[in-house]
Amino acid sequence: MTYSELSEQIFQKQSYLCVGLDTDPRKLPPPLRTEADPVFTFNKAIIDATADLAVAYKPNIAFYEAQGPRGWESLQKTLDYIPKNCFTIADAKRGDIGNTSDLYARTFFDPTAAGLAFDSVTVAPYMGSDSVLPFLAYEGKWVILLALTSNPGSADFQRQQLHNGPQSDQALFEQVIRTAQTWAGPDQLMFVVGATQASELEQIRKLAPDNFLLVPGVGAQGGSLADVSRLGLTKSGGLLVNASRSILYASSEKDFADLARKEAQQLQQEMAQYLVNLV
Amino acid sequence: MTYSELSEQIFQKQSYLCVGLDTDPRKLPPPLRTEADPVFTFNKAIIDATADLAVAYKPNIAFYEAQGPRGWESLQKTLDYIPKNCFTIADAKRGDIGNTSDLYARTFFDPTAAGLAFDSVTVAPYMGSDSVLPFLAYEGKWVILLALTSNPGSADFQRQQLHNGPQSDQALFEQVIRTAQTWAGPDQLMFVVGATQASELEQIRKLAPDNFLLVPGVGAQGGSLADVSRLGLTKSGGLLVNASRSILYASSEKDFADLARKEAQQLQQEMAQYLVNLV
Repeated sequence: MTYSELSEQIFQKQSYLCVGLDTDPRKLPPPLRTEADPVFTFNKAIIDATADLAVAYKPNIAFYEAQGPRGWESLQKTLDYIPKNCFTIADAKRGDIGNTSDLYARTFFDPTAAGLAFDSVTVAPYMGSDSVLPFLAYEGKWVILLALTSNPGSADFQRQQLHNGPQSDQALFEQVIRTAQTWAGPDQLMFVVGATQASELEQIRKLAPDNFLLVPGVGAQGGSLADVSRLGLTKSGGLLVNASRSILYASSEKDFADLARKEAQQLQQEMAQYLVNLV
Repeated sequence: MTYSELSEQIFQKQSYLCVGLDTDPRKLPPPLRTEADPVFTFNKAIIDATADLAVAYKPNIAFYEAQGPRGWESLQKTLDYIPKNCFTIADAKRGDIGNTSDLYARTFFDPTAAGLAFDSVTVAPYMGSDSVLPFLAYEGKWVILLALTSNPGSADFQRQQLHNGPQSDQALFEQVIRTAQTWAGPDQLMFVVGATQASELEQIRKLAPDNFLLVPGVGAQGGSLADVSRLGLTKSGGLLVNASRSILYASSEKDFADLARKEAQQLQQEMAQYLVNLV
């Protein structure tokens, strides 16, 4: 999916909601547990209930990987089931030396490898340019690079100040954002930006005025959608706001899909207001 | 495997060789390609040919993942086949927020999850403490944390100087090493250190005098085993030096296992000399 197609979807659906498919087999509603593929059955119901409200779906690869080969089958079926007008994100946080990143890129982008054809993959920046470029070599595919994450550990390294001469100190996450922009344009590069601190989001939006930002940390992790939208939205949309647990596990009973929809609808309706204010 | 057991293996085998199982189905000797599971058949032959010369095996997860569910089956069979006196490393470079790292840890450590029970996993530090601690929660299991990698991109962020007050500037990789040592002791924590610059290895050994260092970049990636050994060996061994392509693809013909053994033997014999000099 291209930049302008994604932007178009956002204004058409009046939503920049990304539904995180962090599907934990241990948390599924009891009636589903006897299904042949409970994870796929659950995801299918969630997708059916939210596809008109969400512009993106983000399976968290750890949840599938932890189930071994079976999990990869559920992942493939889930990806195939996501409607083509939704942007897809493999939340994998991969990154390795060139020949290895090349294989991770094949895994998530090239359907002849592992049967998967995601639009994008989340990538960790620690190993630098040659760990990221193999993903960018796939035309029309996206890298969503970790910049500033929403967890407490983001203080350990991401927020450390770098020493770049006497005048211009900046945090590591800013350096990541600046450097990565020399690797690709906003048509292939997004950043993961936690919603925990409004001032930082404002600063990041200045550094990356045209890049889409993938914002976790709204919902169960607890950031404010109003703040994120005010500081992050651009005339192209420019935001994907993720909610996972608050939607998936809105109910642990038979009515889980209905309540997931209600939760997604609430977010979408709030987003619609912010999009209206934008114009 | 414990610190002292690993140390004991090193002195018993007179080797600190780690064989990287970066098994690429496209590079297998033609006679193997018609096997039901060519990757496992190849790995089995490599393990048979090197098990008395290597103290560790390191499957590179990308290579298995890129083959979808089938790849995970080959990985599981390979891991089960590795002799119990060899240390096993899932080279996965994972790292995510706590609840997700928890699942990655289950994937590689808890055999009831994905059928895998590695001794250790490589982890990327960018997301900080709470992305690493879930791996350390497994008693007797190890984290091998990326510190300074051997690829050109390591200059982009790992080598950046941090500004920690007027007197003590240090590179990001040093900060990673210092900080991580507050999370776990040398009995659970190793560091990945590229073999490309001798002076840096010396500096890292000072920062982490007792931690094992996993050193890639010897062999096809081209570091000097003599330098690495002189600067990195400790009285407990303290080193795992990895070679992948130079061993796996020593020959692309039927004699691949014999030539893999010769290559491994050459490295082991050189290592034996350095271990003798140590005492």
